[in-house]
Amino acid sequence: MAGIKVHGIPMSTATMRVLAALYEKELDFDLIPVDMRAGAHKQEPFLSLNPFGQIPALEDGDLTLFESRAIAEYIAEEYSEKGEKLFCPGCKKVKAATKVWLQVEGQQFDPIASKLAFERVFKGMFGMTTDPAAVEELEGKLVKVLDIYEARLAKSEFLACDCFTLADLNHLPAIHYLMGTDSKKLFESRPKVSEWVKKITARPAWAKVVELQKKQ
Amino acid sequence: MAGIKVHGIPMSTATMRVLAALYEKELDFDLIPVDMRAGAHKQEPFLSLNPFGQIPALEDGDLTLFESRAIAEYIAEEYSEKGEKLFCPGCKKVKAATKVWLQVEGQQFDPIASKLAFERVFKGMFGMTTDPAAVEELEGKLVKVLDIYEARLAKSEFLACDCFTLADLNHLPAIHYLMGTDSKKLFESRPKVSEWVKKITARPAWAKVVELQKKQ
Repeated sequence: MAGIKVHGIPMSTATMRVLAALYEKELDFDLIPVDMRAGAHKQEPFLSLNPFGQIPALEDGDLTLFESRAIAEYIAEEYSEKGEKLFCPGCKKVKAATKVWLQVEGQQFDPIASKLAFERVFKGMFGMTTDPAAVEELEGKLVKVLDIYEARLAKSEFLACDCFTLADLNHLPAIHYLMGTDSKKLFESRPKVSEWVKKITARPAWAKVVELQKKQ
Repeated sequence: MAGIKVHGIPMSTATMRVLAALYEKELDFDLIPVDMRAGAHKQEPFLSLNPFGQIPALEDGDLTLFESRAIAEYIAEEYSEKGEKLFCPGCKKVKAATKVWLQVEGQQFDPIASKLAFERVFKGMFGMTTDPAAVEELEGKLVKVLDIYEARLAKSEFLACDCFTLADLNHLPAIHYLMGTDSKKLFESRPKVSEWVKKITARPAWAKVVELQKKQ
C-alpha cells in the first residue's frame, strides 16, 4: 500500500491527468471524492490541501501537493523506477526537449483546448449554452497550434522524442473530451497529429482512467 | 565563453525571466535582438528556433530551447553548480513544493498578472487604450491569488521554502511592470507579499535585468 491519496473526481481534466500518471506508474492509490456540488473544494478540510480550492490534491505519506502538472511531475520523478518511464531516459537534449513540450502543453495548448472543451462539453453538462462564436475563435487558435504539432510529429514519434513522455500524457484529458465533439476533425485532418492521438489514447493506463470515469 | 545565445528583447516579460536566471547563475551570454516591429519573430530564421514565433529562444551550444519557463528550469538544472541555487537544496518535500509553486506561477498568477500588465502598461506603449472594466475584473481576480500568497508567505520566507527559488524568480517580470502602476497597492497592502516583493526585486541579478532594459 503506497499510501497515496488523490482528492478529486474522475470527470475533472486535472484529476484525470494525475490518475493517468499513477496508472502509468502502476501505483496503488485511493481516490477520495470531493463533493463539488456541495462546494467541498471551497471549504475546509479541502482548503488545507489546496488553498486555491481546486481539485485535485495529492497526499503521499506526510507530503501534500496540488496543481495537477506538479503532481504528475512529482509522480514521474519520485517513482522513476516503477512502471513506465515518463521522462525519456535519454541525453541532456531529450531532457531539455521534454521541459519545452511540458510548457507548450501548459502555456500554448491547454489555455485553448480547455476553453474549447468547456464550450463544447462542460457547458452542456451544467445546463449552459455553447457559444458558437467562442467555439469558432478557439478552433481558429487551436488549428495554429496543431499545425505546429503536425510539423513536430513529422520529426519525432512523440512530442519530446521517440518515447512517450509526461509531455504527451498531460494532453490526454482535454483531447479525450474534444475527440467526443466536432472539434475532433481538427485532430483527424492532420495525419501525424491523428496518429499521435491514436497512440496516446490507446495506452492501457489511459483506458483505466476512462474506465474509472464510467463507474461514477 | 559559455556559448549561450538569448534571442529576445529586454522589454519582454518572457525574455526578462530568462535573463534573470542567467544573471543569478552568473553565466556569460549574448543577447541577440529580435526585430519584433518588422515581424522577425514570425519569419525564418527565428521560426526554426521557436515554431510558435514567440520570444525568447535560447541556444546553448547545439541545443535550442523555447518557452521561457522551460529555459529558466534548464538553466537552473544544467548549471546547478554555478551562482545561486535556484532549486533549494533541501529534502524531497522542498523539491515537491518548488514544483507546486512553479505551476502556481504559470497557471494561477501569470494568466491574470500578464493580462493586467498588458492593460496597464503595454497597451499604452502600443498606442492602445486601457479598458477600466478589464482592469477591475483582473484586479478582483489578482486579489484572491495574493490573499493565498499572503497566507503562504506567513509560513515561509519565499514561496517554496525559506530560500529564494525559481518559483519566486518566475514572478519577477510581471511584478516589475505592475509595481510601476496603480496595481502596486494590491501588493503593498499585504505585509508579507510586500516584504517578498521587496526582497525579490532587490536581488542584484534582477537589478542587472532592469539595467539592461534601460540601455535599449
